[in-house]
Parts: sequence; C-alpha cells; structure tokens
Amino acid sequence: MPAGEFDLIDQLVRTQFIQRDEVALGIGDDAALLDVPSGYELVISTDTLNSGVHFPEDTSADAIGHKSLAVSLSDLAAMGAEPVAVSLSLSLPEADEVWLKDFARGFFLLADQYKVQLIGGDTTRGPLSIGTTIYGKVPKGQAIRRNGAGPGDVICVTGTLGDAGAALLALQGELKLTGPQEKILLKKLEYPQPRIFEGQAIRKLATACIDISDGLVADLGHILKQSNTGATIYVDQLPVSETLRQCLDRASGWHLAMQAGDDYELCFTVPEDKQAELEDIRIEMDLPITYIGITEPRKGLHLMMPDGSLETLDIEGYEHFRSS
Amino acid sequence: MPAGEFDLIDQLVRTQFIQRDEVALGIGDDAALLDVPSGYELVISTDTLNSGVHFPEDTSADAIGHKSLAVSLSDLAAMGAEPVAVSLSLSLPEADEVWLKDFARGFFLLADQYKVQLIGGDTTRGPLSIGTTIYGKVPKGQAIRRNGAGPGDVICVTGTLGDAGAALLALQGELKLTGPQEKILLKKLEYPQPRIFEGQAIRKLATACIDISDGLVADLGHILKQSNTGATIYVDQLPVSETLRQCLDRASGWHLAMQAGDDYELCFTVPEDKQAELEDIRIEMDLPITYIGITEPRKGLHLMMPDGSLETLDIEGYEHFRSS
Repeated sequence: MPAGEFDLIDQLVRTQFIQRDEVALGIGDDAALLDVPSGYELVISTDTLNSGVHFPEDTSADAIGHKSLAVSLSDLAAMGAEPVAVSLSLSLPEADEVWLKDFARGFFLLADQYKVQLIGGDTTRGPLSIGTTIYGKVPKGQAIRRNGAGPGDVICVTGTLGDAGAALLALQGELKLTGPQEKILLKKLEYPQPRIFEGQAIRKLATACIDISDGLVADLGHILKQSNTGATIYVDQLPVSETLRQCLDRASGWHLAMQAGDDYELCFTVPEDKQAELEDIRIEMDLPITYIGITEPRKGLHLMMPDGSLETLDIEGYEHFRSS
Repeated sequence: MPAGEFDLIDQLVRTQFIQRDEVALGIGDDAALLDVPSGYELVISTDTLNSGVHFPEDTSADAIGHKSLAVSLSDLAAMGAEPVAVSLSLSLPEADEVWLKDFARGFFLLADQYKVQLIGGDTTRGPLSIGTTIYGKVPKGQAIRRNGAGPGDVICVTGTLGDAGAALLALQGELKLTGPQEKILLKKLEYPQPRIFEGQAIRKLATACIDISDGLVADLGHILKQSNTGATIYVDQLPVSETLRQCLDRASGWHLAMQAGDDYELCFTVPEDKQAELEDIRIEMDLPITYIGITEPRKGLHLMMPDGSLETLDIEGYEHFRSS
C-alpha cells in the first residue's frame, strides 16, 4: 500500500464481498499478502486506462469501472488463468463521491462475477487515469503463451470482431447507426466481456493465445513473430456480428474485423490434430469459437480474400508509441 | 501485459540485468508468471507518483526513476520482505528518449542493487505519472503487520527524520540552506534509501512496522489505531541529522521530524523483553536504529516535550484526499 492510502479506497473496499482463500492479507497494511497454492504459478498483468486516450472523456463512470477490470481480466483469459485478485490505482481530478460510487458499481459487479478480490491500491489527485494490476493462477507450466504456435495450427477467435471499432467510429461521427445498433455496439465497446471461461477451456489444447486489444492483425502478428511462423487468414471466415453486417458493407466489415481494436476477444492456435477435440469442447460448452485460418512456414500474414486473391501484410513495426 | 506493450518498455527492459528464479516468464506476453517458493507468501504493494503532486515538476528523470522504485521497496521493507519483481506503468506526455534513458538509469540502478526484476508494465501517453506494483516474498506468516503492537512495546525508528521535509521547505523557498546543506538534504528527498535490510533484520522481533511516508505522527498513528493502543514519544529522542540541526532551531527540527513525510524510514515496535536482542542485532549489523518512545494502554499519541510537559495529539481523521 502506498503513502497515501485513505478514505476513497476504503469506500471502494466496503462495496466488495469477495474473500479469496489465496488472500492472506488484503487492504489496510503496507502491502497485501498472497498465498499461491502449491502446483500453481501466479499470473500478473498491468494495464492503464487514461481518459481521452483509452476511453472517450464522456464515458460513464460505471463503464470505466467495468472496462478497467475487464481489460485486465482479458489478459488472464489469454493465459488460460483463473482470476484471483486485483490492485487498483485511481488518479482522480477531485474526490467525487457520485463518480466513485458509479465506478465502484461497474468495477465490483465484474469483480464479483469472476470472484476477484481487491487487495490494494491507491488514490491520487491528478488527471483521470485507472491503473490495474491483476493476479490469477494457473497450474504450473500450463499458461498459454504467445510463442508456441507451430506451422499447420488452426487459428481461432472467440466471439465477433469489429463491433467495438464500429462503435468508436460512430462516436467519432464517421459511421451512422440506428438507435438499436448504437446501443448494441456501444455496449461491446464500453462493457467488453473477458473470455475467462473460454481461456481456461482451451488451455490444454492451445499452443498460443493472445487477447485482441489492438486488432486481429496486430495481435495475431505478436503470436506469429514470437512463434516464428506465418499464417493465412480466410477473410470471409471472420466472425462479424449481425449488427455490424446491417450497418456496414461486407468489405468495411471485414476491414474493421481485421484492424479495429477493443474487442477483447481471444485469438489462439490449436494443432490440427487437436481440432476435433476443440470442436467437442466447443459444442459441449457452447463456446463462441470460429476457425479463421492456418499457420504456415511461409513468413508474414497472408489474407485470402473472398475473390480468391491473396494479400500479404507486413506484421513488423506496426506498434509504436500509440495514442489509442 | 497490456493492450499497448511496445517499444518504450522494450527499451527499458534491455537495460536490466537481473534474472530471478521466481520469474517463470517476464515481459513480452499477455502476463508475467511468478513461481512463489513453497513456504513463502507473496507480498504485493501498489504506488503511484504524479508529477507536481508527489514530486516537483522539475525533478530529474533519474531521481524520479529512483524514487518510484524506492517508495515501493519501502513498503516491502515495512513488511520485512525480500524484493523479487516489479511492474511499471509509465504515463508520459511524449516519447522522450533522453528522459526515458535517465529514468531507466535511476530505476535500474536501484533495481540491480536489490535484485528486483521488471516483469511487466505499460507505457501510455498522458500527464507524467509513474505507477509501480512491487512483489516480494516472506516466509509464511512472518510478514510484519501494523496491528501487532502491544502495550509496553518499545517504539523505534531507522535513520533520521525530517531531512526530506526540510529539502521540500527549501525548494518552496521557506527555508534557507547553504549549498552543501541543500545537496545533502535534497539527496534525502530525491533518492530515499529503502530500509530493506533493516526490515528483514527486525522481522522476527518486531510486533508492528510501517514506513514513514506521511510523517511519523501520521504513520505511527496507523500502527496505534490498528493495534488498538496508545503511545508516548520522547521528543528529544527523535533522531535528527547533523545537517538539519545546523539549519533549523531545535523546536523546528523536532517539528519536522514528527510531521514531515517522504523520509521512508521505518517505524516499528518491539516487545520490551526483546529489546536486548534488538540491541545485539543493531550493534552487530551496525543498523541505524533509535528508540523514541513506548506504547501504552492509554489511547492517543502523547508527546513528552523536552521541558517535561506532555502534549496529546489526535491521531484520528488526519488523512483524507491529500494533495501531497
């Protein structure tokens, strides 16, 4: 715990119900204590959301609370981990009780859903910014990393892609939506659902996994680079939601599905000889999983377009000091 | 790891040498993996330093790098823990390579000293802010908490108190210092030394411990509240540095020693019957420890002044939404 632990964090903590066995000491001392069960590794991920950068300035406090935890949980999902606890660093321009109550509602509703205990944090005065460090557990050696994809693996994604990107376009005035369309897509942008169950379900089959925060091309690119392999994506296989289909032509929909971020779906690879087993799990657990391509020795990311033509993308150097 | 892991963190990581056995997977995936040895608990603390709030805006990047880690290490020290790893969230107005290099030098010099491995983090665009989450380990059940002080315990502090506060006064133009004085005191403010060795040395003797970030009165107040006990401090026993004595009269020096923050010394309590053992350790390890008072059943924090008069401080409600 920080120099300035005080009332605001105390207020937040009072709204939480989760008490985890792994938490030997929670909030209120110089530090928290975690007791990681033997046979497990602790999975740790840090994220920061800044107002005006990672979410529009007029986003509701409830949505910010949800999203700041969802983004962290999504990293655990991508490792196939079970959520345990979270630390929260809130930077706030002023001590606004109404804002804080709304933020806490969004944050703890999701925390309760996944049984995540808040174990520490601090609140400081400054421009609105939310930092989270999340802790999960995974059986030793079983975390799904990014570097395990081999040539010939099937590439899969969860859910649908491009919805959050479409909502962002609409907010920027670049896409016209009907009321119901906007409601559905905005919910995907503001209240992403981390794929915790899916991540754990595929853990023993997947050779690599990442969560799609920067867009399919960029994030699959991480897997390909770290696994030292290439891939072909069948563009007409990309899962696009009914809503996205209604408001965009097919080409624009595919473009968003490939390039837009913020969906927080999982992209993962499974060896071809495990695909039948994955299919069994998919059906049995009713998981929203789509097969979109295959990894291959030929380097680069190749897009098989619906007209049969092949486009090759450069997956190097697309990520720098980003403002979104 | 976050949505936006990219070059800046990569650059930072390249400057680090420490590889810990406990780190099963470091930077570069969706999350890091820690392997906590059996028989140990993981100690976790989160801190945020904002420019203009927690350090003056013209503080050097090197000092900011040092201090952001030192403040976190100090929390581990207060628990009696051994440092293991750290996650870093940097919010920067722009990607300034020179600033980043200086920051990294200050950060990793201290990280190397205490064998702390950087295992994750993110860099986002925004007002200058540094978030750290630090991980340490401590034998199960042996962390020093705040709530264990009993009546009759001896109250101790490490080092000297008030130096950082004096430097801050000088920076604000409220205290006149000679060049050498300013150099010494400014170093105490900008480059605090976490009391990691002291924290581990006293772990088996101390009943409660806290690091002094908000000032002795405020932080000892936490111990007293959580231990449900009172205390008397002998004001003329407070350790005041030679430099502070030179530039302030005795009363002002004591005032700073009691009220000023940012020293990051430890304040801890030891049962009276363990004081001889502590004294042996203090001499053998040459630890800078001073006995400054005693806990007692009578509630509140009482100050025995050098003239023999007794003042009582209210230790409730002194900490709110702070701007310093």
